[in-house]
Amino acid sequence: MKKIVIIGGVAAGPKITAKLLRSDCDCQIDLYTDEKLISYSACGLPYFIEGLIEDPNRLIVRKPEQFEEKGANIHLGKRCIKILPDEHAVLIQDVDTKEIEKVNYDKLAICTGARPIVPSIENIELKNIFTLRTIDDGIKIREKLRHSKKAVIVGGGYIGIELLEAFYLNGLDVHMIEMNEHILPIFDPEISDIIKNEIIKMSNGKVRIITNDAVVSFLGEDKVEKVVTSKGEVIDTDFVVIAVGVTPNTEIAKDAGIELGVSNAIRVNNRMQTSATDIYAAGDCIENFHLVSRNYAWIPLGSSANKEGRCAAINIAGGYDALPGVLGSAVTRYNGFTMSLTGLTETEAKKFGFDVISSTMTKKDKAGYMPEAENITIKLVVDKRSRKILGAQGIGSGDADKRINTVASAIQAEQTVDDFLHLDMTYAPPYSTAVDPLLSAALVINNQIYKI
Amino acid sequence: MKKIVIIGGVAAGPKITAKLLRSDCDCQIDLYTDEKLISYSACGLPYFIEGLIEDPNRLIVRKPEQFEEKGANIHLGKRCIKILPDEHAVLIQDVDTKEIEKVNYDKLAICTGARPIVPSIENIELKNIFTLRTIDDGIKIREKLRHSKKAVIVGGGYIGIELLEAFYLNGLDVHMIEMNEHILPIFDPEISDIIKNEIIKMSNGKVRIITNDAVVSFLGEDKVEKVVTSKGEVIDTDFVVIAVGVTPNTEIAKDAGIELGVSNAIRVNNRMQTSATDIYAAGDCIENFHLVSRNYAWIPLGSSANKEGRCAAINIAGGYDALPGVLGSAVTRYNGFTMSLTGLTETEAKKFGFDVISSTMTKKDKAGYMPEAENITIKLVVDKRSRKILGAQGIGSGDADKRINTVASAIQAEQTVDDFLHLDMTYAPPYSTAVDPLLSAALVINNQIYKI
Repeated sequence: MKKIVIIGGVAAGPKITAKLLRSDCDCQIDLYTDEKLISYSACGLPYFIEGLIEDPNRLIVRKPEQFEEKGANIHLGKRCIKILPDEHAVLIQDVDTKEIEKVNYDKLAICTGARPIVPSIENIELKNIFTLRTIDDGIKIREKLRHSKKAVIVGGGYIGIELLEAFYLNGLDVHMIEMNEHILPIFDPEISDIIKNEIIKMSNGKVRIITNDAVVSFLGEDKVEKVVTSKGEVIDTDFVVIAVGVTPNTEIAKDAGIELGVSNAIRVNNRMQTSATDIYAAGDCIENFHLVSRNYAWIPLGSSANKEGRCAAINIAGGYDALPGVLGSAVTRYNGFTMSLTGLTETEAKKFGFDVISSTMTKKDKAGYMPEAENITIKLVVDKRSRKILGAQGIGSGDADKRINTVASAIQAEQTVDDFLHLDMTYAPPYSTAVDPLLSAALVINNQIYKI
Repeated sequence: MKKIVIIGGVAAGPKITAKLLRSDCDCQIDLYTDEKLISYSACGLPYFIEGLIEDPNRLIVRKPEQFEEKGANIHLGKRCIKILPDEHAVLIQDVDTKEIEKVNYDKLAICTGARPIVPSIENIELKNIFTLRTIDDGIKIREKLRHSKKAVIVGGGYIGIELLEAFYLNGLDVHMIEMNEHILPIFDPEISDIIKNEIIKMSNGKVRIITNDAVVSFLGEDKVEKVVTSKGEVIDTDFVVIAVGVTPNTEIAKDAGIELGVSNAIRVNNRMQTSATDIYAAGDCIENFHLVSRNYAWIPLGSSANKEGRCAAINIAGGYDALPGVLGSAVTRYNGFTMSLTGLTETEAKKFGFDVISSTMTKKDKAGYMPEAENITIKLVVDKRSRKILGAQGIGSGDADKRINTVASAIQAEQTVDDFLHLDMTYAPPYSTAVDPLLSAALVINNQIYKI
């Protein structure tokens, strides 16, 4: 019987376990996690904090018992402190007793995920300064939110935006502080600007967004009371959430001599194999291969973790599966306003040497005479020479994100903009315009390239 | 100067005119229509009837003046009664005065559209029996609806369903009578069954759907009062709408010796050229080439009319454009419930000789813990041998139609289900599940093919 050890229990680890249990692999599965629960949707935490979900247990996808009934062993509160690739073993430490045991494996899967970056800001140890990763973090922030009037969010990325929605809709005055010139710098600058303006417009003076400035210190006796920025802003607050980004948990992998890549994430091939024999990795701790840039990138996302977990499981079980790569497709929302993208932005595409042509189209998402029609803005990025679609950004109060998936499908298939503008999309007045905004954006580019 | 004559003014005709006016073609454009207005959204009529749109003029996309200002001549109330291909001329009759003039052309575009089929049912000439094509038809039905309590819709296709929504939401008791075994027979039978059950469930006893039965006569003195079916049902009603399908307006084309195809629609090549020199056609009167079946089909849709109009205009102007074909993508709704599809259904795919494998997946469209999550059912149809995706049907209260467009994009690019299940789709709890329902459906098929 093959002995399979899985390190990590949030998304990729449980996915591997579930897929192995469904396969006819003759194996013993042991999953170790330093947390007290497994298999939960970290992506749902902002909506628990917002109050859309009452019971945090609803975020749990599967309980340990559900795996154990089927024959897997789930070890809670057990941290992997060392990988010994030559011995095909790991050292596991009990989080409470600190006892250490050596566990042998035939195949190992590293699914250690990522953790929030905690920048070195003066007085960051003050009370009521939070980060968000676990359900416990979520419970603490929600509890604090209920008895607060003011909050500061440090960082204007996805999690920052989702917390902004949660705090604003709970009646708080919120400051968001982003070091970059734009919030959501993953979008092109002019799209980020539209997003920022829309957020402000929707927030009735309750939200202030400060860009191009950094927090230098927190003030307060025991608890945080003020946030001080490098430009000298002093902001009163009841609490702070730090959401400046994440970093992969790859120290034990690095320590074991396993090759790392971009942002210190673990490099894997398309079968999720690391540089070490019989060691696989999946989820937020691994590097991705970007299908458009043909370069490595670290884009940790829950949707990818599921695909990677499945792929790793099939290969661990002795089958064959390969993941071609990612497009970096992502979506978030603020108060009904959607922000989504796939592939490369114009900024990124230029960085990778493409000869970029783009079009940005703001149009109703449904027939203009339908009362439910809302604006969306689509930006399409195309390589002028090959005419291949490189990326798309879609934002607005209307139906933007699903259109971005339609582009994602075209990009994955390496479609040109000439192919794409012929796409036979569904049309009825409550759903789109006779010429869908996506196709309008493609037509503008086509007209520019061919000057007809 | 090239003399371009366009016959028909609803969708494709105005599109050709608009595109020609934007091109640098040195041409005189004359558009003839037997109607009193041009360029309107016939697809919006059910929503005008429903009352979502107050002013029927909102359905007008462009007014004649908007074209004339730019140099096109719009001739209202002028019917083309004969095409003389050898003379490069058409005979145009004034609808009111009946005067006939001969008009010469260098290039002709036939955009005569389609008209509702009026079956030969006893007493069909009674008052308050309507069909729906023009804005005038819409105004009449809306007016009647406002003073009625009961209605009968003959035909369970898209327009029937859209009228059902309009009538139900205006408080009427409605009977829908469909000759086929299923309403919306464009879907696979088991999907049509789900649709029928959902419609009934949502309609609080106000809607009855009769399938497998036909109307044999209407009863009443001057106005229709009862509808009699072949199985002997006698249904009291205040008015009737006949929506049993449409037929292309191609009599003048046929009379001129122009080649027709499926359902008597005009056959065109991928540049919208008919069998006659210098004669183009576009819109509901032309036959389509189906990209999956590789066969001709007649699928008249507003979205296609726009693409065909653009293509015809570019070629008429001396440029080059070619439309590869259609996927038959379509969508409609009933009371918030979406019904959409693209490509071939299982039934059709089998008819065309494919070795079909399919999966049907009912799943939440968003993370299950989000209060706004709704069910959708996705059916994916795949060719077992090539593993190419042949079609998809998506229905439900959730976000189904945009997912269908994502599949449409994959089908157009001839993606296999193996490629498709790796698609990097956007994910966040308010938008989808970590494994999107589309990918779940693809995974089920993959697991069946490879038995892992």
